[in-house]
Amino acid sequence: MAENKKVSSVVIRRLPRYYRYLGDLLSAGTKRISSKELSELMNVTASQIRQDFNCFGGFGQQGYGYNVEYLYNEISDLLGIRKGRTMVIVGTGNLGMSIAGYANFKKRGFSIIGLFDHNPQLYGKEINGVKIQPVTDLESFLTSHNVDIAVLTMPKESVREVLPIIKGRVKGIWNFSHTEIPQDSALSVENVHLSDSLMTLSCKIARNELKNK
Amino acid sequence: MAENKKVSSVVIRRLPRYYRYLGDLLSAGTKRISSKELSELMNVTASQIRQDFNCFGGFGQQGYGYNVEYLYNEISDLLGIRKGRTMVIVGTGNLGMSIAGYANFKKRGFSIIGLFDHNPQLYGKEINGVKIQPVTDLESFLTSHNVDIAVLTMPKESVREVLPIIKGRVKGIWNFSHTEIPQDSALSVENVHLSDSLMTLSCKIARNELKNK
Repeated sequence: MAENKKVSSVVIRRLPRYYRYLGDLLSAGTKRISSKELSELMNVTASQIRQDFNCFGGFGQQGYGYNVEYLYNEISDLLGIRKGRTMVIVGTGNLGMSIAGYANFKKRGFSIIGLFDHNPQLYGKEINGVKIQPVTDLESFLTSHNVDIAVLTMPKESVREVLPIIKGRVKGIWNFSHTEIPQDSALSVENVHLSDSLMTLSCKIARNELKNK
Repeated sequence: MAENKKVSSVVIRRLPRYYRYLGDLLSAGTKRISSKELSELMNVTASQIRQDFNCFGGFGQQGYGYNVEYLYNEISDLLGIRKGRTMVIVGTGNLGMSIAGYANFKKRGFSIIGLFDHNPQLYGKEINGVKIQPVTDLESFLTSHNVDIAVLTMPKESVREVLPIIKGRVKGIWNFSHTEIPQDSALSVENVHLSDSLMTLSCKIARNELKNK
């Protein structure tokens, strides 16, 4: 098992992309792939691939390349998704609904088991077999169910109210609420700021504009 | 002007976060801040802040700290958002609607001037004063309007059809379509894979689970 090996946080950030590409290769029936072939496919250097895979014991065989299924399973273990993760979504506006409706999460081991909102008009509405409940029922739901991840897709202002309910009852927060939640040893956090990615794009464009002047 | 200074792509990735924090400080009326104060606020080291700001000529004065407004404007220039960017959204499902409805983009200089979808039931529907149009009208719209960025929030399968229409008519693509669009010198691309961030969160949780065993 790869789980007890040390992998740097830089490599961890790259794992999901490897996971996606290896999953596609596996679905296409590819058994083995060389670092060179994978590097062309993914547009990264072969030496980075070799270094990254060495980190968690994915050693290719000279002339044979990597065993795709083995690597895929090792990375699944590192990502902690082979055993599956349960999630609740708090805030069922457009963004929450878009996450709730994304079929690929289930395929990757993430099950949405609860949906919560403040809007009474939404209570009882069903998405993929899960009913929207009032946020006031969140605490009892988290107590009676085993929930790994809370997805926060509500406005910034509501986070202060919901955070004390969530803390100690989930293992991680996937936070889209335009505020930064600090993580600690008991609670993992991914703060997503979509606008950061848009600003990075704008920066790339500005640099291209300068170059092509 | 900061635009012609060389800033590494690692620093570029960090600029949007600085921009957010400096914007908040500016709104709060803060005139000057030391790297130490900013480092505590942002939870990064003061030396990283000093290094990053030095990259684009944001030199703090010993004992006085940084001029917040000056830094904010320098970073705005680097991000290419002071002059404003125009965008169209192609795909007005839940994710597209959530982006179309996000008020902060406008505040940061990004104006959504066109919305496009394949679903005839949505044609004419208005979001923040912009009407949804058929995708078949996209080409003529891009020809008659100055559009900087195309936001792709449609399914993977539709990208093949839309990409040739977009290429050469916009400067950048903000891509949410679960496929990777390669960038070149004429077209900047940000490929967003929300599930990568979810998998990274799962990985952090797995490592905490191991530590706390």
